Amino acid sequence: MKVCRRETFNAAHRLFKEGWSDEKNEEVFGKCSNPNYHGHNYVLETWVEGPIDPETGYVIDLKKLKELVRGEVTDRFDHANLNLDCPEFKNINPTCENIALVIWNILRVKLDEKYKLTVRLWETENNVSEYSGE
Amino acid sequence: MKVCRRETFNAAHRLFKEGWSDEKNEEVFGKCSNPNYHGHNYVLETWVEGPIDPETGYVIDLKKLKELVRGEVTDRFDHANLNLDCPEFKNINPTCENIALVIWNILRVKLDEKYKLTVRLWETENNVSEYSGE
Amino acid sequence: MKVCRRETFNAAHRLFKEGWSDEKNEEVFGKCSNPNYHGHNYVLETWVEGPIDPETGYVIDLKKLKELVRGEVTDRFDHANLNLDCPEFKNINPTCENIALVIWNILRVKLDEKYKLTVRLWETENNVSEYSGE
Amino acid sequence: MKVCRRETFNAAHRLFKEGWSDEKNEEVFGKCSNPNYHGHNYVLETWVEGPIDPETGYVIDLKKLKELVRGEVTDRFDHANLNLDCPEFKNINPTCENIALVIWNILRVKLDEKYKLTVRLWETENNVSEYSGE
Amino acid sequence: MKVCRRETFNAAHRLFKEGWSDEKNEEVFGKCSNPNYHGHNYVLETWVEGPIDPETGYVIDLKKLKELVRGEVTDRFDHANLNLDCPEFKNINPTCENIALVIWNILRVKLDEKYKLTVRLWETENNVSEYSGE
Amino acid sequence: MKVCRRETFNAAHRLFKEGWSDEKNEEVFGKCSNPNYHGHNYVLETWVEGPIDPETGYVIDLKKLKELVRGEVTDRFDHANLNLDCPEFKNINPTCENIALVIWNILRVKLDEKYKLTVRLWETENNVSEYSGE
Repeated sequence: MKVCRRETFNAAHRLFKEGWSDEKNEEVFGKCSNPNYHGHNYVLETWVEGPIDPETGYVIDLKKLKELVRGEVTDRFDHANLNLDCPEFKNINPTCENIALVIWNILRVKLDEKYKLTVRLWETENNVSEYSGE
Repeated sequence: MKVCRRETFNAAHRLFKEGWSDEKNEEVFGKCSNPNYHGHNYVLETWVEGPIDPETGYVIDLKKLKELVRGEVTDRFDHANLNLDCPEFKNINPTCENIALVIWNILRVKLDEKYKLTVRLWETENNVSEYSGE
Repeated sequence: MKVCRRETFNAAHRLFKEGWSDEKNEEVFGKCSNPNYHGHNYVLETWVEGPIDPETGYVIDLKKLKELVRGEVTDRFDHANLNLDCPEFKNINPTCENIALVIWNILRVKLDEKYKLTVRLWETENNVSEYSGE
Repeated sequence: MKVCRRETFNAAHRLFKEGWSDEKNEEVFGKCSNPNYHGHNYVLETWVEGPIDPETGYVIDLKKLKELVRGEVTDRFDHANLNLDCPEFKNINPTCENIALVIWNILRVKLDEKYKLTVRLWETENNVSEYSGE
Repeated sequence: MKVCRRETFNAAHRLFKEGWSDEKNEEVFGKCSNPNYHGHNYVLETWVEGPIDPETGYVIDLKKLKELVRGEVTDRFDHANLNLDCPEFKNINPTCENIALVIWNILRVKLDEKYKLTVRLWETENNVSEYSGE
Repeated sequence: MKVCRRETFNAAHRLFKEGWSDEKNEEVFGKCSNPNYHGHNYVLETWVEGPIDPETGYVIDLKKLKELVRGEVTDRFDHANLNLDCPEFKNINPTCENIALVIWNILRVKLDEKYKLTVRLWETENNVSEYSGE
């Protein structure tokens, strides 16, 4: 049985690889590499898989999952500049894939090992990434 | 190949474990345990996986899947109080997980064994459950 | 200039006119009159019209509008039974129209008179009401 | 890691099996078999699974995936009659399943073998198919 | 007080002005003029404005509005070719605007004069028309 | 008759009033005033009202409206930092209201006077502004 909590955060970012020239960055990342940043309304789906607790009928209390996701991720990333304000992206390019990976890593260590975790991240209504930890 | 039919039903429910005091129920289930009930517009996705019939190009006729889902599930659950009107929840707490499980069990026995069945249930735009049979 | 804040609440209700027999109620309101209640995920759009404040660039601070809508309306209606838990509907049938009207009346007296107020309420993805004051 | 690009196309089609009489076609396919065609706003999700490129942080450049999907699929299918204008459906009934299958086959040969490919196709807001190549 | 019922229909159409050459039609209407037709999932919002009936709390019974819209419009237009199957478009180009106008005219004569009627028609998620009578 | 074209752009911004201290800015604008910016997927609805052209059945050719909106607005604002990259906001705080106002002013002078113009701008799924010219 899987359950999911959907949360959102609004952040600025810039795709940029250190060590590459600005020209090379623009060639690879196009307008996503604008030095002044652009931004998105990210939609984050956190999927947790495990057995139903026969006492409560819950896989996990979604209120607690909500608090976990907000406390560890969206409260920190919301209204932030991912490149500048979030140390997780100091050395990692904040692509849709890497943001999902970073979030998965943050949540994985906070979740009981009995759960399987999948993170799905919508950057726009057309671009999505999903990570389950290989 | 998988296909899915999306249907909706609007129902009242209350999270509640018999044998627990009202205080214990409220402690665990919060305002979801309101004795006067609250409700949701549930969105039910029924996914069926199987081979394409070379005659028709269908995995399953989605009109027939629609009729099955309506006849067995949504016509009965729609505008109902899950706790009081639906015998399936007499002894089962109608959490998002348990409703998905109950629906899966109802549909599983009505579907040809050659199909794999997955039920996804949106309780709100933020809370979802999904069940595929263990 | 108009601005809108969208909020949600999940509630149970029953359409029912006191003084009518159960048969008459069912004849008029159909399954919406189920004595055990059913429920919805209501989506509430609160539209406020007025001039832009040249200092802030706001018609109204949407954070404050959010707090107003939550404090006066959705925190009280969420996870409630509108018929039983909300005194506003003691003598008023909680149709989609009447809920919008009640919400408009609650918010109208809390908003500065310089603003024009419109309330739009989605009961389901298919049924909506909207009220702007006569 | 998976990524997805969502694109749309608007097309006419008719469900129809050659060799069957019009009566038989209507019996099986109902109004979907209307000889004058009907149509849909198809929503196509193209999911690509593979490792993150450590240089770019991309599984695949979603701009390039967008260009691939448009160039090979949606530019050709958009504003087309699938039965008459698209040779792929000359001998294949354009059901939601078969359209997903055809699109998967078109894209599979254009994508590097290192990627796993899944195609999800929404025919309406209620009917969907998904294919990952058995 | 306004209320709205949302319904959908899936239809084929072609933009085409009789008396113009195929070249002229294509010049003006582009690929929307494909002689083999294309199609859409139309979303129709029918808005009715009037006083609340103090007996029922309804502006209009939305179940009856649903039946009216289905009986007069969507049952006939669904899975149809607007140009060929619907006499309303024999001499009228089925643009998004004209379809809204035709639907408004159909519904206007069936609705009590005390109601103000507005029809909003989504042709795609990006293109919409709205008509309220001159 | 009204028609609408929906377009999107993804941009960074910061709410900030020149002449106010950082403390004052944060007091009024909260985390929207983050000096490193944050961002949104803006959804822009451009509504144009006018008579139907009897030749074409169009109020305005939505392809041309699309090109106008993209050419004058979304191509310039997309993947931009509104505060730094767009001269329109040099002296105007880019609130949801002011962005709608700026867009309205840009489009108004490009549209034939016979049309009434309304701009609706979704900053998030919960915050919207709308401007029709006083």
